[in-house]
Amino acid sequence: MTDQTPQVRLERAKGASRAIAALTSDDKARALEAIAVALETNAAPIIDANALDIARGRADGIGESLIDRLRLDERRVAALASAVRQVAALPDPVGRVVGGHRMPNGVSLEQVRVPFGVVGAIYEARPNVTVDIAALALRSGNAVVLRGGSAALESNTVLVRVMREALERAGITPEAVQTVDDFGRDGAKALMHGRGFIDVLVPRGSAGLIETVVTESTVPVIETGAGNVHILLDESAPDDWARDIVVNAKVQRPSVCNAVETVLVHRQAAPRLIPLVASALQSEGVAVHGDDIVAGLVSNVIPATEEDWATEYLSLDVAIKVVDSLDEALDHIRRYSTGHTESIISTDSRNIERFLAEVDSAVVMANASTRFTDGAEFGFGAEVGISTQKLHARGPMGLAELTSTKWLARGSGQTRG
Amino acid sequence: MTDQTPQVRLERAKGASRAIAALTSDDKARALEAIAVALETNAAPIIDANALDIARGRADGIGESLIDRLRLDERRVAALASAVRQVAALPDPVGRVVGGHRMPNGVSLEQVRVPFGVVGAIYEARPNVTVDIAALALRSGNAVVLRGGSAALESNTVLVRVMREALERAGITPEAVQTVDDFGRDGAKALMHGRGFIDVLVPRGSAGLIETVVTESTVPVIETGAGNVHILLDESAPDDWARDIVVNAKVQRPSVCNAVETVLVHRQAAPRLIPLVASALQSEGVAVHGDDIVAGLVSNVIPATEEDWATEYLSLDVAIKVVDSLDEALDHIRRYSTGHTESIISTDSRNIERFLAEVDSAVVMANASTRFTDGAEFGFGAEVGISTQKLHARGPMGLAELTSTKWLARGSGQTRG
Repeated sequence: MTDQTPQVRLERAKGASRAIAALTSDDKARALEAIAVALETNAAPIIDANALDIARGRADGIGESLIDRLRLDERRVAALASAVRQVAALPDPVGRVVGGHRMPNGVSLEQVRVPFGVVGAIYEARPNVTVDIAALALRSGNAVVLRGGSAALESNTVLVRVMREALERAGITPEAVQTVDDFGRDGAKALMHGRGFIDVLVPRGSAGLIETVVTESTVPVIETGAGNVHILLDESAPDDWARDIVVNAKVQRPSVCNAVETVLVHRQAAPRLIPLVASALQSEGVAVHGDDIVAGLVSNVIPATEEDWATEYLSLDVAIKVVDSLDEALDHIRRYSTGHTESIISTDSRNIERFLAEVDSAVVMANASTRFTDGAEFGFGAEVGISTQKLHARGPMGLAELTSTKWLARGSGQTRG
Repeated sequence: MTDQTPQVRLERAKGASRAIAALTSDDKARALEAIAVALETNAAPIIDANALDIARGRADGIGESLIDRLRLDERRVAALASAVRQVAALPDPVGRVVGGHRMPNGVSLEQVRVPFGVVGAIYEARPNVTVDIAALALRSGNAVVLRGGSAALESNTVLVRVMREALERAGITPEAVQTVDDFGRDGAKALMHGRGFIDVLVPRGSAGLIETVVTESTVPVIETGAGNVHILLDESAPDDWARDIVVNAKVQRPSVCNAVETVLVHRQAAPRLIPLVASALQSEGVAVHGDDIVAGLVSNVIPATEEDWATEYLSLDVAIKVVDSLDEALDHIRRYSTGHTESIISTDSRNIERFLAEVDSAVVMANASTRFTDGAEFGFGAEVGISTQKLHARGPMGLAELTSTKWLARGSGQTRG
């Protein structure tokens, strides 16, 4: 495909998007089943290509956790196929009537869900995202243009080829799935500046990648991701809820965006809760960064600096800070939160309602683990990402968030008076 | 206010947005009533300031149609106050529960409408937009930062001062209404790059202004406006519907975005419909630009060039083109439409349904005038603009489109398994 430009790929996706938008739900489910089968059948070449990426990654000295994210083995390829089948089984949002009425003059107005057209995705070296995003885009009637991390180039090339061949065998235009990986930085640029070709661009990855995409793009972007997540232990927080929720939110999966990063503790509850919560965390291997009060109540506390309050650790680290009041907690959250998820642990309904009303985040919780901010937990069946912006989608995004709407008006000769 | 920077204004709006978001519907209605009264009371200084803008406009040689858009007289100031009262009477979208369910573990999930926070607006020399956008933003619980055209600087300065004083008298922070007009181009730049301060930016005006804002902005933008609107007269189009709808769509108000610009006519219907429709248009003073077939059927046809198909005339001009088939019409629309509104005139239900399904525009009509694409006609009571993009809002935007949502989760100690 080296004789092509990235722009040609965008044009082909745009051309294919009309055919994909016209597919029935059954057609789309069939196409995804064909992709799932093809992934299973082609497990060997996929794993072989992935081995090349891993060898190059090791030669380049990338870390073990990145190597792990990059790796595809038999089990993971099977999981990819299974995820595609799950997406195929989801209700199709396209065609759903979401509004409408009859105008006084008799014109019937109907607002219906329609595909965006072409979804772009820019992400890092996780080959599973290649398949996930393609499946979600196709299920919601969109064509897709993919730009994955260069460290996964060999894997992504084979995955895209396998998906395109599967579409072709299912009688559906393979041009609906495009990659611009082979153009490197120019591929990403073409996506970000693809006005008229890319209807929405979804960046997935580090805060730096997202910032670049948001800043550079002239196409509409849905910002996903970064989570500097807070839990506030209010004066009335019960011991067990405080301990269990903080430990769950930090330890169950520390590398993800809905894991807690800073715990704020009301001064009146500090002597009761901090030793309890900190020791529970430390016994799970968590490094506690804290202010002076925390250090006076617990041993082995790393002194917290301004930087700790702003850091999304994504690791077995947590920052703990004592606050004098709910207002101070709200101020701290306003200053440092990335608007992803915050939770208050409290039995004081007045404080709970103030927290729910005043915290300006995609998901605001009372007495629940921040780990629940997740498309599957929210019942969406699949997750495109977690939007931390306010336009179009906020919080976990399901298939419906990969669609737009259009108005259909049916009249019988009406004109405007 | 000359000692300030545009950034300070953005920060003040952001600060004020918390208080505005917390207002009840009644508070907000009261604030808008105070603004309406203040506009009426201050009609004289508003008109005096406007006279300065008009004098400068004349000295700068701007055209009469721009002068007319710029002008505020007694009647127009009264209309501004009346529009503010209409917005005050609209149902408040904030707090509406739009989704939710109970998770299997008992956590209650609720998706509620919340204000964006700070709405930015960049527009041209129409001082009524200053008041309209401020009223819509406040009604939906948002602070607002305004940047109007420099030709309306004196008018806007007084309008903003009057609105701020009214808020203050109503006991509401005046910082919720900000202008950056006095910083000229730097004010617009601050808005477009106000990440973390401007939650959504709405450009209103010419295609050039919108293009600049979309391309330069790093904050989320809702693209509004340009309408290269088509009507297709299908083979089966009844004489009266074809004539009445095309004349209404072109003549009733030619300067607006939902006015028709190109009429496509099926070849089989051309001898029947083109003389009828073209003469009806010509008798209303419309200049007909047409292809060779049109010129062969009607006198006084201006030969149409490629440029005519792409032009949003916004005047008493129309382009007429003969097409061989529905497919050719769909291709033409795909190529030249700005995705605003298209209408087919036909009694063939198969062609109608294909047209409704395949035309990728915000509003797609059958047998109705394109002039119906309008917030008031759609029953929204007010209109923020007409979105021609697919993200967040598409078609006429009402108050709900100036809000986001957030998820509230209420638990009793739940953790993730």
